[in-house]
Amino acid sequence: MATVTELLLPVETDLEDLLKDLRVLIGAGHPILQAAAEHLFSAGGKRIRPGIVLLISKALTVDGNLSSRHRRLAEITEMIHTASLVHDDVVDEASTRRGVDTVHSRFDHKVAVLAGDFLFAQASWHLANLNNLDVVKLLSRVIMDLAEGEVKQGLYKYDATQTLDSYLEKSYFKTASLIANSSQAVGVLSDVSDYELSQLYNYGKQLGLAFQVVDDILDFTSSQKELGKPAANDMASGYLTAPALYALEENNRLSILIEREFSSNGDIEEALTIVRNSNAINRTRKLAEQFAKDSYESITWMKDSPYKKALLNLPEYVLGRLY
Amino acid sequence: MATVTELLLPVETDLEDLLKDLRVLIGAGHPILQAAAEHLFSAGGKRIRPGIVLLISKALTVDGNLSSRHRRLAEITEMIHTASLVHDDVVDEASTRRGVDTVHSRFDHKVAVLAGDFLFAQASWHLANLNNLDVVKLLSRVIMDLAEGEVKQGLYKYDATQTLDSYLEKSYFKTASLIANSSQAVGVLSDVSDYELSQLYNYGKQLGLAFQVVDDILDFTSSQKELGKPAANDMASGYLTAPALYALEENNRLSILIEREFSSNGDIEEALTIVRNSNAINRTRKLAEQFAKDSYESITWMKDSPYKKALLNLPEYVLGRLY
Repeated sequence: MATVTELLLPVETDLEDLLKDLRVLIGAGHPILQAAAEHLFSAGGKRIRPGIVLLISKALTVDGNLSSRHRRLAEITEMIHTASLVHDDVVDEASTRRGVDTVHSRFDHKVAVLAGDFLFAQASWHLANLNNLDVVKLLSRVIMDLAEGEVKQGLYKYDATQTLDSYLEKSYFKTASLIANSSQAVGVLSDVSDYELSQLYNYGKQLGLAFQVVDDILDFTSSQKELGKPAANDMASGYLTAPALYALEENNRLSILIEREFSSNGDIEEALTIVRNSNAINRTRKLAEQFAKDSYESITWMKDSPYKKALLNLPEYVLGRLY
Repeated sequence: MATVTELLLPVETDLEDLLKDLRVLIGAGHPILQAAAEHLFSAGGKRIRPGIVLLISKALTVDGNLSSRHRRLAEITEMIHTASLVHDDVVDEASTRRGVDTVHSRFDHKVAVLAGDFLFAQASWHLANLNNLDVVKLLSRVIMDLAEGEVKQGLYKYDATQTLDSYLEKSYFKTASLIANSSQAVGVLSDVSDYELSQLYNYGKQLGLAFQVVDDILDFTSSQKELGKPAANDMASGYLTAPALYALEENNRLSILIEREFSSNGDIEEALTIVRNSNAINRTRKLAEQFAKDSYESITWMKDSPYKKALLNLPEYVLGRLY
């Protein structure tokens, strides 16, 4: 089983350049934003989103050479992603993300608002200057979906009556839309056919959904140490994901615990046990497997290359995080 | 001397429709955003920015009829403006704006971040769907300038060595860019000549600068009751504007007070007296008059109409706030 670093090896140098560019772009001329940029774009992050953009870009060329517009698109993708994380952490009052301090806990929420706005603004400026209206539309749709997802997520907090469809819609808005639309945007810049455009979109969409569903399983099955946050942290915060929603179909006791917002002692532990002892994790894993399979099958038409190989391995890598 | 309501009379119904649309657009489906939208887009605001867009739009038509794209542009202008205000208030920790509670003090800073992001996202989505790359570029430049201005403003806090040019640049970023670029964008949608495009830009730029400079004078000359905030509030917060910068040229004592951040008892009152007793207010007024004159002269080429008349009266109205 390859690691993500191994998978992204064909674009490793490009990703390093990209991080360097982003640090300069964001930090220039402002000491506090510079510190925030160092913090956000330091080495060690997985950068899977710009990695996908770069891999698709290279897979669609004849010679594996990247144009400056393809590089810029990868940067824009990472800027939008990072901006939305920084603001989400303010809205969700998260103090750490994957074990690392968030901007608003390391600095304060004012710096986080400023840094996020600055990133969004840079993204929208560079986006306009790619000079392609279709790409502008695809990525502005992403910005809209991210905001919509954050709003929806707040709306469904502790709502035991929400459907699996509304959970998947939220997951699309918050995770899959960026990967789907930026994958399609690569195709627009590379002038591929309409069929291939829709397949690129589908590759990103299904991969993004698989990624989110696997993340939601890990929230229940991993330990605090592995997650960098307490187990079942999402559920405890009121964010109900696929495992909780499936478990609700089997066990009515769970909805009582959720509706009283886990306010009694031991509620969270009891809820965690209910989910773990149900068939929910199994069913959620099947869901992730279906998304990963659909993602894989969407790009079999690409001509063979190390980039295509990495892209085909990504869905399996996403599932592999479960084992 | 006309009031702003009288000046905007030729587009009064259009502005009412616009506010109704914005409340629906932002509030739909989310109770807290709906409350924030009601708060932000309630009657009583001056809506001078979309008013200018609508007046120019009508002045450039043959029959005074607005296209849906011109209306949408006016909405986008107000969305971007409102989003930046909501986030600025978080960054500046302002609890009131013109005497009214800010979103983050009425609700909390999390709602303010979410509402601002949602507005920016809606703006960028509707912008892309105007289907005109030039308009996208003009308005994404605005979003960039607003973020840059907010960053710069923080950077120059309590900096008595900053130049008048850096103050004017900041004022352009934070106030004039939106009016200048949206005025030009109307011209793009209305297909006017390159000369007229640059004149529309200049009209908005000079008007925006006049507006900001007058605001900065009022901060020193008005009472707390008139301002809805304490007099010399900007200076006390470390934001040095034209009157303070001119006064610094005359009186070295002021720089001592600024550099110790008005930390001793009576510092603010002493600084206020220095500025008021200097020639600074007078010089700043002359600056505003020049901007207003330049603005007026930029649109004399328009054919006569009630809309042109209102646009020509706006620079004078801006100066009139001083008397």
